Amino acid sequence: MKETLQKISPLNSDFFERAQKRLDNLTKPQGSLGRLEEFAGRIVAITENDMPELEKKVVFTFAGDHGVADEGVSAFPKEVTPQMVFNFLNGGAGINVLARHAGAEVVVIDIGVDYDFRDVSGLVSKKVVMGTKNMRKGPAMTKEEAEKCINVGIELATEYAKKGFKIFATGEMGIANTTPSAAIAALLTGRSVTEVTGKGTGIGNDALNKKIRVIEDSIALNRPDSKDPIDVLSKVGGTEIGGIAGLIIGAAANRVPVVIDGFISTAGALIAYCIEPKTKDYMFAAHKSVEVGHSAMLEKIGLRPILDLDLRLGEGTGAALAMLMIEAGLKIYREMATFGGAGVATEKKD
Amino acid sequence: MKETLQKISPLNSDFFERAQKRLDNLTKPQGSLGRLEEFAGRIVAITENDMPELEKKVVFTFAGDHGVADEGVSAFPKEVTPQMVFNFLNGGAGINVLARHAGAEVVVIDIGVDYDFRDVSGLVSKKVVMGTKNMRKGPAMTKEEAEKCINVGIELATEYAKKGFKIFATGEMGIANTTPSAAIAALLTGRSVTEVTGKGTGIGNDALNKKIRVIEDSIALNRPDSKDPIDVLSKVGGTEIGGIAGLIIGAAANRVPVVIDGFISTAGALIAYCIEPKTKDYMFAAHKSVEVGHSAMLEKIGLRPILDLDLRLGEGTGAALAMLMIEAGLKIYREMATFGGAGVATEKKD
Repeated sequence: MKETLQKISPLNSDFFERAQKRLDNLTKPQGSLGRLEEFAGRIVAITENDMPELEKKVVFTFAGDHGVADEGVSAFPKEVTPQMVFNFLNGGAGINVLARHAGAEVVVIDIGVDYDFRDVSGLVSKKVVMGTKNMRKGPAMTKEEAEKCINVGIELATEYAKKGFKIFATGEMGIANTTPSAAIAALLTGRSVTEVTGKGTGIGNDALNKKIRVIEDSIALNRPDSKDPIDVLSKVGGTEIGGIAGLIIGAAANRVPVVIDGFISTAGALIAYCIEPKTKDYMFAAHKSVEVGHSAMLEKIGLRPILDLDLRLGEGTGAALAMLMIEAGLKIYREMATFGGAGVATEKKD
Repeated sequence: MKETLQKISPLNSDFFERAQKRLDNLTKPQGSLGRLEEFAGRIVAITENDMPELEKKVVFTFAGDHGVADEGVSAFPKEVTPQMVFNFLNGGAGINVLARHAGAEVVVIDIGVDYDFRDVSGLVSKKVVMGTKNMRKGPAMTKEEAEKCINVGIELATEYAKKGFKIFATGEMGIANTTPSAAIAALLTGRSVTEVTGKGTGIGNDALNKKIRVIEDSIALNRPDSKDPIDVLSKVGGTEIGGIAGLIIGAAANRVPVVIDGFISTAGALIAYCIEPKTKDYMFAAHKSVEVGHSAMLEKIGLRPILDLDLRLGEGTGAALAMLMIEAGLKIYREMATFGGAGVATEKKD
């Protein structure tokens, strides 16, 4: 991990300036395409390429189970995690539909599902544990396991960068995973557990209060060091969250833009950001999740979400949609005519 | 127009219920795809088809000039309107790039440009006037001309519905056209001119104050009847705004969903809504424009915008992007696996 972190450099402002110059010469009032222009400028600076393209796109959906599901914090039973993995592999889940819509591949990674998939075709097997342990009774993972999860993400990022993929998106599946995500949010943003804990896939008010207690208990028992993101990840986190953190670190090291999905993905992004703040420049926040606590994490990192469509599914669904907007910005940059080329008069000079 | 208005019926709630039943049986927590589910339900109800598709999509970009440009209310000279029409026909403008991205055709209509295009290939010639008159000196159009503009839109909607297009988007080009749009916004929402007038393509503060005065003067001189949307359109409106209002009326009459672009398109939508409030059910508000006054109009109609990307270009650019989100909702509805079909457990019953 250390070696990868050393490869991450801040963006070079020269590329932003050159991109802005081109954007300002396109046949539109300056700045009138708003955030599309921002996306284009950032892709140019990330890739250090004056005419980048995003043709090959990939969504990484990390799947992992959570011992804390035993505490009744989710509306769904734990068996749904492997069932949904099969659904992903069969192309029937939300992320499959939206990734197809966005022209992106879906890579499904078993990083910690409590199920033996054997060698089922299409699944990337990187299992670190058979589900995390119940954090209300002890640490979810060891520090070594947490680091292993991050390394899984880093290796995937490097592999897919080498394969020619130009933009990554994060996604996840794991029954109960809004619980560790809320714990991470509380510890790394400094907010109270109540402020950052929501109803996940749809629990009632009683279950929400119980979920808050479970998170408070887990933090009290394990005493994660909020100055040490890997300690936080190991004690109250999850395998898929670690994989996402690693993917982001690897994306930044390989100069590949990475689109962060919703609440759980942003917990991973916050881990990555706390390990190395420079990763922020390589991130795009896909959307504002319905899940309370999401905004607190985005604010902490300093990201403004692209979409606000009341999504709360995860899997990478919001990220797939946001890829379409980022790509739109890049197409504007690449394909629009210039004032001179199109014979259009520019603004009147006062 | 009267005949077309009589064809517009409210949406049938049975279709919403059937759509929701299907959505609730897809492999995701109920409601977790938020607005995507809302879009799908509405497309089903609009089309009265349990398995609709949106394959053929079209953006209508209406171009018209404005006599009020003489008052110095825009940052660009009037010649830019025909120059941009040529840019549209050559495929180099923002709307061309984003419509291609969304898989939509662009239809460019000369409804009132102050330029003789002769029979230039690709342009739909429906010219009602050679630009409107300067509304600071008298009515922009006669009532007959305003009605003619609306009929142009209705005829196009019917023609393209017959051709098999399944979703329409509105767009426009016309130097100075935020000025009549702000006048319409003030009159039909009841807000003050100052509240709804913005910087358009990018004028300074002095020019903004002048623009507000020009609008106030035009309203004082022409005394449009705010209870009569066609009177408003004729006295302080524009040809492209009338065309858009007609397109929306025609879309509703033909049961075709229509995506409303930004500030100017929403002025057209507000005219359509004030003529026949049932048109609202057929509209999707593409985005929240940077232009102040846009939100006031959306609130008046009762529409929540889909995107918020700081756009202020017009042409239909925001609508093209929003089409991608609406289509995403429909693909979710059509393509996702059901719980039973995928062997995934549903929520635990309490």
